[in-house]
Amino acid sequence: MSKTLIFGHKNPDTDTICSAIAYADLKSQLGHDVEPVRLGEVNGETLFALQTFQTEAPRFVETVSNETENVILVDHNERQQSVSDIEEVHVREVIDHHRIANFETSDPVYYRAEPVGCTATIIYKIYKENQISIPQSVAGLMLSAIISDSLLFKSPTCTAEDKEVAEELAKIANVDASSYGLDMLKAGADVSTKTSEQLLSIDAKEFSMNDYAVEIAQVNTVDINDILVRKSELEQSILAINAAKELDLFVFVITDIIENNSVALVLGKETASFEQAFSVQLDQHTASLPGVVSRKKQVVPPLTEAFLAK
Amino acid sequence: MSKTLIFGHKNPDTDTICSAIAYADLKSQLGHDVEPVRLGEVNGETLFALQTFQTEAPRFVETVSNETENVILVDHNERQQSVSDIEEVHVREVIDHHRIANFETSDPVYYRAEPVGCTATIIYKIYKENQISIPQSVAGLMLSAIISDSLLFKSPTCTAEDKEVAEELAKIANVDASSYGLDMLKAGADVSTKTSEQLLSIDAKEFSMNDYAVEIAQVNTVDINDILVRKSELEQSILAINAAKELDLFVFVITDIIENNSVALVLGKETASFEQAFSVQLDQHTASLPGVVSRKKQVVPPLTEAFLAK
Repeated sequence: MSKTLIFGHKNPDTDTICSAIAYADLKSQLGHDVEPVRLGEVNGETLFALQTFQTEAPRFVETVSNETENVILVDHNERQQSVSDIEEVHVREVIDHHRIANFETSDPVYYRAEPVGCTATIIYKIYKENQISIPQSVAGLMLSAIISDSLLFKSPTCTAEDKEVAEELAKIANVDASSYGLDMLKAGADVSTKTSEQLLSIDAKEFSMNDYAVEIAQVNTVDINDILVRKSELEQSILAINAAKELDLFVFVITDIIENNSVALVLGKETASFEQAFSVQLDQHTASLPGVVSRKKQVVPPLTEAFLAK
Repeated sequence: MSKTLIFGHKNPDTDTICSAIAYADLKSQLGHDVEPVRLGEVNGETLFALQTFQTEAPRFVETVSNETENVILVDHNERQQSVSDIEEVHVREVIDHHRIANFETSDPVYYRAEPVGCTATIIYKIYKENQISIPQSVAGLMLSAIISDSLLFKSPTCTAEDKEVAEELAKIANVDASSYGLDMLKAGADVSTKTSEQLLSIDAKEFSMNDYAVEIAQVNTVDINDILVRKSELEQSILAINAAKELDLFVFVITDIIENNSVALVLGKETASFEQAFSVQLDQHTASLPGVVSRKKQVVPPLTEAFLAK
């Protein structure tokens, strides 16, 4: 039988890459024939983590059905966020911490989702349940995933469990979570060398909300103005993406990781649903979102509700 | 906050009823305010288990949104198998062992599905993970659920894990699994007092397959002829159900629990998909299905594939 491929979502972030590596390590230790792969470019933050813990990036794949029948999804479940030929293979397992939507199997499956801040936190529990020890480098990568998804434990998505697991992982990895974490986040927030298309795709996810196609991209920065000076260029790029993907709405969330606030740049036919979701008026396509740092917990749910109410 | 209701699917079987009771016990021991409820009549097999282990049946409910905002689903996830007002409440958790389909949340959720034979097997693991002890009566009900879903460990859905867990539960419940199990299955297989409508609804589930509406009902018996003597009466009832529910296909699986074979009685516009799925010709609406005892593993997957290939 061909090996099972393990991967996270398109436009991979640190949790998607590191959880694929960690879960592949766990399954290998349990005797399974698996390989972690990735569906896109490794971003600057993830690269910093991989280099710190001396681990190779997973192999890039465009499709999977040409090499296997069996896959395991980490850090996502929605079809449109997964590999393009996902319908051609069997999803054997899902380890995730997002809402469930646009996911269907014909057979029973191992599906493990928990409402925690990070997939790596769940994988830590599965290591423990199976009494498997976590290698030092893998622990460092899992810690990186939690720091990334929780913005160094400051996001409202971060649970007590995420913090406890991060402490345990920091011990195994032998690093100071706070100082390492800030260095890692800053490595990811360096936007100076990025084109506007790159800024919009670093961490972009597509959602189907009441049959409307919505893309929500997010970028972390230490100064929102570093991004907003390029507003007209970004708007042109968003309009081109909306046309090419036939999107109804594009929301670009620019998050200040020091102040823990965001500004959204919003374009598309359905901007009224955004305004309704957040009780704001867009001013030249932008709105300030004080205290908003989490797409999953603070952007997707109100936007989903607004589209469902249409 | 109002209490969280825990329930399984419509037309409840032994796993649905007993897993709701068991998971409510576990959550209560963990300090949560929960109540198990049921969406339909308790069948004869389940009644035998409840009486043996001196436990009240959960309260019957027709809707849930009139009394709570929060629910936990056990032993199912598909919307059309759940309570009629499922869209009006928040699904906080799902513990299940079926395929995932027609399920969507706007928020992250605790979702625990494993490809084992019985929901109670997964709940046993969650008891262990939380280091909570299982009361004797609850252990007896969980054992009953595993015996029911696995036809006394003979179904192809039964895994090594189901058997191991059943052994542990039999010790706690202080019963002999084989002799108790056969008595329980026979109590459920007594069809002499049932109307044809009752036979068709004891264990009926609706599925959406490539947008076709398919209902698959199953009945256990010690002699298939006890059921087939009422074939014309059953056919009338199925045609009435198909018309009322606008079904495209009705499959009634009559399973001999001693011989481990089934005969299917199949009516509706889409009988050709059934014939394709099982490579059989229906003869006066019936087909023999040698070795088939599991709807989940031996009926739903080939039928889903056949509808997807249309």
